[in-house]
Amino acid sequence: MSAGPDPVRVDQAGLTTLVERLGQVGAQPGGGIIRPLYSPAWRTAQDLVATFMADAGLTVREDAVGNVFGRLAGDAGGPGVLTGSHIDTVVHGGAYDGALGVLSAIAAVQACVARAGPPRRPVEAVSLCEEESSRFRANYFGTRSLLGMVEADEPQRLVDTDGVTLADAARSVGLDPARFAAARREDFDTFLELHIEQGRTLVDSTVEIGIVDVVTGFLWLEVTVDGRTDHAGATAMTDRRDALQGAARMITAVEGVAGVEGHPAVATTGVVRVHPGGTNIVPGRVEFTVDVRHPDPAVLDRMVSQISERCEAVAADRGLQVGVAVLKRTEPLRLDATLRTVLQQAAEACGASWRDLPSGAGHDSQTMGTRVAAAMLFVPSIDGRSHSPAEYSTPEDCARGASVLATALHAIAW
Amino acid sequence: MSAGPDPVRVDQAGLTTLVERLGQVGAQPGGGIIRPLYSPAWRTAQDLVATFMADAGLTVREDAVGNVFGRLAGDAGGPGVLTGSHIDTVVHGGAYDGALGVLSAIAAVQACVARAGPPRRPVEAVSLCEEESSRFRANYFGTRSLLGMVEADEPQRLVDTDGVTLADAARSVGLDPARFAAARREDFDTFLELHIEQGRTLVDSTVEIGIVDVVTGFLWLEVTVDGRTDHAGATAMTDRRDALQGAARMITAVEGVAGVEGHPAVATTGVVRVHPGGTNIVPGRVEFTVDVRHPDPAVLDRMVSQISERCEAVAADRGLQVGVAVLKRTEPLRLDATLRTVLQQAAEACGASWRDLPSGAGHDSQTMGTRVAAAMLFVPSIDGRSHSPAEYSTPEDCARGASVLATALHAIAW
Repeated sequence: MSAGPDPVRVDQAGLTTLVERLGQVGAQPGGGIIRPLYSPAWRTAQDLVATFMADAGLTVREDAVGNVFGRLAGDAGGPGVLTGSHIDTVVHGGAYDGALGVLSAIAAVQACVARAGPPRRPVEAVSLCEEESSRFRANYFGTRSLLGMVEADEPQRLVDTDGVTLADAARSVGLDPARFAAARREDFDTFLELHIEQGRTLVDSTVEIGIVDVVTGFLWLEVTVDGRTDHAGATAMTDRRDALQGAARMITAVEGVAGVEGHPAVATTGVVRVHPGGTNIVPGRVEFTVDVRHPDPAVLDRMVSQISERCEAVAADRGLQVGVAVLKRTEPLRLDATLRTVLQQAAEACGASWRDLPSGAGHDSQTMGTRVAAAMLFVPSIDGRSHSPAEYSTPEDCARGASVLATALHAIAW
Repeated sequence: MSAGPDPVRVDQAGLTTLVERLGQVGAQPGGGIIRPLYSPAWRTAQDLVATFMADAGLTVREDAVGNVFGRLAGDAGGPGVLTGSHIDTVVHGGAYDGALGVLSAIAAVQACVARAGPPRRPVEAVSLCEEESSRFRANYFGTRSLLGMVEADEPQRLVDTDGVTLADAARSVGLDPARFAAARREDFDTFLELHIEQGRTLVDSTVEIGIVDVVTGFLWLEVTVDGRTDHAGATAMTDRRDALQGAARMITAVEGVAGVEGHPAVATTGVVRVHPGGTNIVPGRVEFTVDVRHPDPAVLDRMVSQISERCEAVAADRGLQVGVAVLKRTEPLRLDATLRTVLQQAAEACGASWRDLPSGAGHDSQTMGTRVAAAMLFVPSIDGRSHSPAEYSTPEDCARGASVLATALHAIAW
């Protein structure tokens, strides 16, 4: 019978302090954290993370795009093990999404060293610069930079809502966009990420650890509905071709299509633009987005077909034109089976209950997993909240997850 | 048997030329006219109108807010007769809404003089500076200034989308906001306005002239729907309180309430704001407007109640909160019965078919009618279009309307 890995415990009070300190960076007076890529708050946060890493005895380095690493050289050399997550937040986000993975990584590496001294393989905690499209449509920018997946024109092409390019934003925090390509690395083959679940599955099933089997694929659609702009007072209801009345029925159908497929299918409209947008003007054009997710690509395709069909039926019924364009598609990613087994054994060694779980949200691990062995574990999100000031995971849950991470790291790299 | 008024004919070619010349001011390369209050295009347009008035033999004067008048002193003195409409346009508006009423007034006064010499009563063609809320939320600003209905703080309080105050905008075209109150007049008791119908009633019934009996009242509502912001990937459909899915059903209900009342009830949602507005974020809040119109105030009240009830039912069903606020209410206005009779007799004298018609759109006559005797006539709008580059009325229809106006003016003031 296998003995299983030795449990490595992370200090709960120490991790809680790190979470609280980092959670003050970018915190808004009315609640919520705003820490977009290459903002002053972002700069302060990465500098604080660097301090935490140094305090943990790690060798700190910031790369060309602003990813921050805390490294332990391995006695045996060879390809390294990275663990961490991202430092940026959505607007009015919380203190856990991304940040908990960065801080757990630091605490876990520190706990491993305290337990067993220097590692066999090189190990690095990493604070990735960007994952959320928090300022530019650049998501997974940190990970993509590490993997050489950034397109050459992105730094000049991508602009924030104020028209600032990603390149200029990088310069404002002391980075040189001409050197961005130097961030690429080929000296690691493993990535482990701890993250909050951002859903209710663990909380509702009172399971302590989720081990992600698959990161759900998703499709982003943009639906454009064309009708006719008319005067809201002078145009009889029967003479209208109101793009918004059509769009309202299409948006209703988006929810219906997810309902027909059932869990874990989700479909969401999050952006609506109404033109010309006057109180007394019948809308002539509406654009709206649809975010469709399912772990099975075939179901994803079917959902998109059904949404398109329903939109076309509404348009035909109401004398409107509709166009459905695919803005973006990310395939589902199955995480590394060997690493998942290590995480399962680590959970058991720590006495934590666990279950397999798909991730409905995208994560750095999804992009890492296209090039290196990647795995991720979830800790419970209270009330399932995320991307919100109400985001919260208990100190016990955070420390338990970090201990599972430490135990897995120890098994892999020590 | 009454002889009825003598018909006074307006020259079709002359009026068409005026419409074409004014239609070039503020015309956009891609189509449509943009002539907001106190813009350079607005200044050019009022100067051109002043030229047209002078060419017609009228004494030209611009008042403190930029209303332009072309006057004929009356032999008998007494309170004057004003006729005209507004010079400003919505964004990408057409060449007829407002402008045709100004130019028909000039042509009609000129035709009366040609027919019968100087008038008995003072007569003025007027180009009102603002009706459309074309730049500021200042609608009927021209008329309200004449009637002393502008609030003292409006010039400083009202700002355009660039943050420019109405006062500063006025200065930029050579007006002095400190003198605005001087625009008030109490020396006229009659207002006649020609306007395009902006609907399809005349076109569809092949009637040549509409004589407005009532300008419909309207209510503007702002509906605020509160749910919960969540991650679009990680939050199961059954765990959501999606404000937009609720709002889509409420917007659908807005149309339904107008349908239940039947013509001429209209209800329109023209503005939707979705928060936080990310493709991958379940909306936590949606605000939308409702424009509700009916000539009968009791029906208007009933429609608002029904819309509120339906919004509340959707909210209760979906775990959302909803608030319905009244932004603005304008009461229906019944136009002057004597003047309507004069217009009817004028239409018959001109051999034009006519019908009574409510106006679903608001007009300067609606505000004028609260203080002086006011009446208005409509000419057909091709395809019912307005507030659009496609706005069009045939030269024959324009001249016929202007001749009816001239005949009525002649009967009243000569």
